[in-house]
Amino acid sequence: MQKQWNVYLAGEIHSDWRQRVIAGAERAGLPATFCGPIADHGASDNCGVEILGAEENPFWKDRKGAQLNAIRTRALLRDADIVVVRFGDQYRQWNAAFDAGFAAALGKALIILHDPDLGHALKEVDGAALAVASEPEQVVEILRYATQA
Amino acid sequence: MQKQWNVYLAGEIHSDWRQRVIAGAERAGLPATFCGPIADHGASDNCGVEILGAEENPFWKDRKGAQLNAIRTRALLRDADIVVVRFGDQYRQWNAAFDAGFAAALGKALIILHDPDLGHALKEVDGAALAVASEPEQVVEILRYATQA
Amino acid sequence: MQKQWNVYLAGEIHSDWRQRVIAGAERAGLPATFCGPIADHGASDNCGVEILGAEENPFWKDRKGAQLNAIRTRALLRDADIVVVRFGDQYRQWNAAFDAGFAAALGKALIILHDPDLGHALKEVDGAALAVASEPEQVVEILRYATQA
Amino acid sequence: MQKQWNVYLAGEIHSDWRQRVIAGAERAGLPATFCGPIADHGASDNCGVEILGAEENPFWKDRKGAQLNAIRTRALLRDADIVVVRFGDQYRQWNAAFDAGFAAALGKALIILHDPDLGHALKEVDGAALAVASEPEQVVEILRYATQA
Amino acid sequence: MQKQWNVYLAGEIHSDWRQRVIAGAERAGLPATFCGPIADHGASDNCGVEILGAEENPFWKDRKGAQLNAIRTRALLRDADIVVVRFGDQYRQWNAAFDAGFAAALGKALIILHDPDLGHALKEVDGAALAVASEPEQVVEILRYATQA
Amino acid sequence: MQKQWNVYLAGEIHSDWRQRVIAGAERAGLPATFCGPIADHGASDNCGVEILGAEENPFWKDRKGAQLNAIRTRALLRDADIVVVRFGDQYRQWNAAFDAGFAAALGKALIILHDPDLGHALKEVDGAALAVASEPEQVVEILRYATQA
Amino acid sequence: MQKQWNVYLAGEIHSDWRQRVIAGAERAGLPATFCGPIADHGASDNCGVEILGAEENPFWKDRKGAQLNAIRTRALLRDADIVVVRFGDQYRQWNAAFDAGFAAALGKALIILHDPDLGHALKEVDGAALAVASEPEQVVEILRYATQA
Amino acid sequence: MQKQWNVYLAGEIHSDWRQRVIAGAERAGLPATFCGPIADHGASDNCGVEILGAEENPFWKDRKGAQLNAIRTRALLRDADIVVVRFGDQYRQWNAAFDAGFAAALGKALIILHDPDLGHALKEVDGAALAVASEPEQVVEILRYATQA
Repeated sequence: MQKQWNVYLAGEIHSDWRQRVIAGAERAGLPATFCGPIADHGASDNCGVEILGAEENPFWKDRKGAQLNAIRTRALLRDADIVVVRFGDQYRQWNAAFDAGFAAALGKALIILHDPDLGHALKEVDGAALAVASEPEQVVEILRYATQA
Repeated sequence: MQKQWNVYLAGEIHSDWRQRVIAGAERAGLPATFCGPIADHGASDNCGVEILGAEENPFWKDRKGAQLNAIRTRALLRDADIVVVRFGDQYRQWNAAFDAGFAAALGKALIILHDPDLGHALKEVDGAALAVASEPEQVVEILRYATQA
Repeated sequence: MQKQWNVYLAGEIHSDWRQRVIAGAERAGLPATFCGPIADHGASDNCGVEILGAEENPFWKDRKGAQLNAIRTRALLRDADIVVVRFGDQYRQWNAAFDAGFAAALGKALIILHDPDLGHALKEVDGAALAVASEPEQVVEILRYATQA
Repeated sequence: MQKQWNVYLAGEIHSDWRQRVIAGAERAGLPATFCGPIADHGASDNCGVEILGAEENPFWKDRKGAQLNAIRTRALLRDADIVVVRFGDQYRQWNAAFDAGFAAALGKALIILHDPDLGHALKEVDGAALAVASEPEQVVEILRYATQA
Repeated sequence: MQKQWNVYLAGEIHSDWRQRVIAGAERAGLPATFCGPIADHGASDNCGVEILGAEENPFWKDRKGAQLNAIRTRALLRDADIVVVRFGDQYRQWNAAFDAGFAAALGKALIILHDPDLGHALKEVDGAALAVASEPEQVVEILRYATQA
Repeated sequence: MQKQWNVYLAGEIHSDWRQRVIAGAERAGLPATFCGPIADHGASDNCGVEILGAEENPFWKDRKGAQLNAIRTRALLRDADIVVVRFGDQYRQWNAAFDAGFAAALGKALIILHDPDLGHALKEVDGAALAVASEPEQVVEILRYATQA
Repeated sequence: MQKQWNVYLAGEIHSDWRQRVIAGAERAGLPATFCGPIADHGASDNCGVEILGAEENPFWKDRKGAQLNAIRTRALLRDADIVVVRFGDQYRQWNAAFDAGFAAALGKALIILHDPDLGHALKEVDGAALAVASEPEQVVEILRYATQA
Repeated sequence: MQKQWNVYLAGEIHSDWRQRVIAGAERAGLPATFCGPIADHGASDNCGVEILGAEENPFWKDRKGAQLNAIRTRALLRDADIVVVRFGDQYRQWNAAFDAGFAAALGKALIILHDPDLGHALKEVDGAALAVASEPEQVVEILRYATQA
């Protein structure tokens, strides 16, 4: 009965990094199950008002949406063995850094994925990580190494 | 023996918001003790290599510095009753969001302080907070309200 | 191996809201398992004295029953990923609010379900929730959104 | 160096029970420090919009207020050795039951104070308590007994 | 996917109470899995020296045995949803009371089983329980009630 | 600012062992503060009904008293650095063993004090301890050793 | 549904002790699943730089490798019911002692395995263990005893 | 009311590193309180049998001593904000590595102090640390930096 590892893929939702990690893990037959946030930007923004009713003030529209996302995110982060957080070069991505801090306080194994030129800006986040990678394929290799029978 | 509240002031280090919060609390005679990260940007960047030895690779220079900062930050966050996180309009401030996530996972009361136009980008962070303010003086008023005898 | 979500349905036992949530989730094929308190009011009141012996003083009859209910409730609340608490317009429903507080302290994702006109009386409870809905079908939509693969 | 006991007095804010507990404890010279929620009903309702800005929708006015109150309440509950929760005969008092559940999940010693005729409605709450009293003076006697040197 | 309840049966090993609880639960088809300490008194006393080598001093013989038993007991207690502790009328049974205290501190649902005439001597232990029964069949009824779908 | 150690003295209340430990610690000037249960047997038995009202059934009289004692005991055990539990040769002393189990589950440093001939009956309790002594003066010596500056 | 026990085999990687424990457990049909660190010394040393890029400074090469190993080790230690730590007579094996301390702080059942002549040097580690064995076959016997149905 | 930092100085007891850290901190006026294990090697070895009675078998002599030391060590480690662990070039120092692992699992800020040539052997321990220093004076500088007002 080999351990199945829960891996949460947090952060950037505008590139194909999740697909590359998951496809690589499948090709390698790794004992890992992947999950992550809702990756549909529009759904993530609008879910709150669509389900719970419209808001005039965008602050409360955002609140409703963010908290629905948190129902998913918090539970999945708590279940995870490993949390990978990807920072891209677009948007402010404060939710990615928030998730990294949340995972760190829970004692999760943290892997941060970003281009090297973001290193200085991410130094506190990287400093809490057990690995800092720049390519999704490195994440696959880390998982292959860490999860072997 | 009135409770003395520990308030950690996280985030932006390039404006006078901490001074405004602390001065306001002092004028109001609030039972609050304030602390926060090292606010000297240069010291915060260089402390690691200055104390523990030079590094050629800026990645490891940053690692050394970030982890020294974490010695301070983690202990003070754990001691805090209330964590205020300020987001400014400069820099990426991923460490501010990281601290907010860390504090949220520890169950700390979280107050987020930012200009309203950052609201959408900060919606997940705001969604974990018990208050979202735009002016340091509002933080003083919140503390005055929450900490009264 | 998709996550199966544990959802505890707390609170009101005199309307069909649980059936509507569960039926909706089944129709949608959601990966959710539902549980809740004993919904038979009489059994819930009398279980203590029926199993453990009669009491003259109704206070101790209630104590025996309430603590048997707690054997079930505490364990299921601890297992839950998501706790939904429904407040109706009958009875005082202090046990519903108690369960909400218990779940909040455990860091569970909390969804509160009530008619809008109860909002002011429930403001502290709602303030601890990640969603406040008025119809069971909204709860189904939230679960559909939050638990998608 | 005798222990100073932290006692949180939760619940009803429309009678003089807190004053009676505190005055009795002072007369008896008990090593106890008392705290509790903001007992000014109007301030408690309006603090959110007064400090953080007006809201048209009463739901969000309530949210803002309730969450400011939670900044105070959560920290003080966590600090408490003993939590006393008073239920009166007015209002729905769901926040009192919420605080009792929150305290119970934290493992706090819980004392519930109410008129005997509320016993059946409060049976789940009472069932989590270490004492159920009907008069504030009994709470003083409990504290005198429990906190003696 | 109905919850399977873990029930740890602690305490007395010289009567057939475990068999009566387990057989009753099986007849009733309850979703419960039972476990408990090693019930072979001799094995429990001698396991330490038999596996790890003889001791001249009975104190260390007992230590070796007790700690091997603890390997089993602690893990099973941590896994349990419900802990039933039986006190008989023979032996001092301090390990039964120790297990009850251990389970109480972990927040487990505690059921105590003993003849009524032991009630006064067990009042602190009973006071931490959610149910106090005198017959194994009552425990079956409690489990039937608490674990129903 | 030397650490002041909190030492909880649990168990037997019918001999002078507490006085001997405390007097010895005072003579040695140890940085230790001592506390323990209510040592007045009658008060401990009757406190519940005296404060909260009479009970016909001795079971509920005991419940009321035991739970008032637990208000004190649980809080002091949680505060303790070191828990000493004394077993005498009278009474069943299940509450002493319960307290030992409770303290062990909280990770407290446990010292057990009893005559050597109780060793076999106490083997599981002793097995969870960091020291097993037979004389109060040994406890003083342990504290002197463990708490030195 | 018998419990399947998770057993983490930490420490020495240069003898066949793991094989002897696992083979013995299989022969005995024990309900135990075994895991442990990466036992390929070279891979364990080089994994960091092979996956994440070369380092000139051996300190950072070691850091990268050690932290990849920690991704595996921490998660598996947290999952374990029982942690066995083997100390051999070669190398300094500080990581074995580190793992023992980590497991002890998590409250895991700890079994230490070493030749008797290492006893004095290992006395603090042994003192935190529930069993100290000198042969792998004794570990099998302990598991057989502790995990029986 | 500035925070006073608790710093535990673990590990090597045969050089003057503690004195150098403490003297440096005093000269710098740092808000730090230092503590550590009993540094008298003989007392640490013999305390158990001297207080609790002689043992023929050195294994049990060591057990008694190590567990008395643990009474001190565990409590002080739990109180610490920062744990510094020094590895020297003599002895096996497994207790130092054990304390480092224990502190890491508790989430303490860890500083490791050793000569650079021990780096490879200590790579897993260093990998869990927020700083790795080679001179006591660097520890003083780290504390000066991390604890400033």
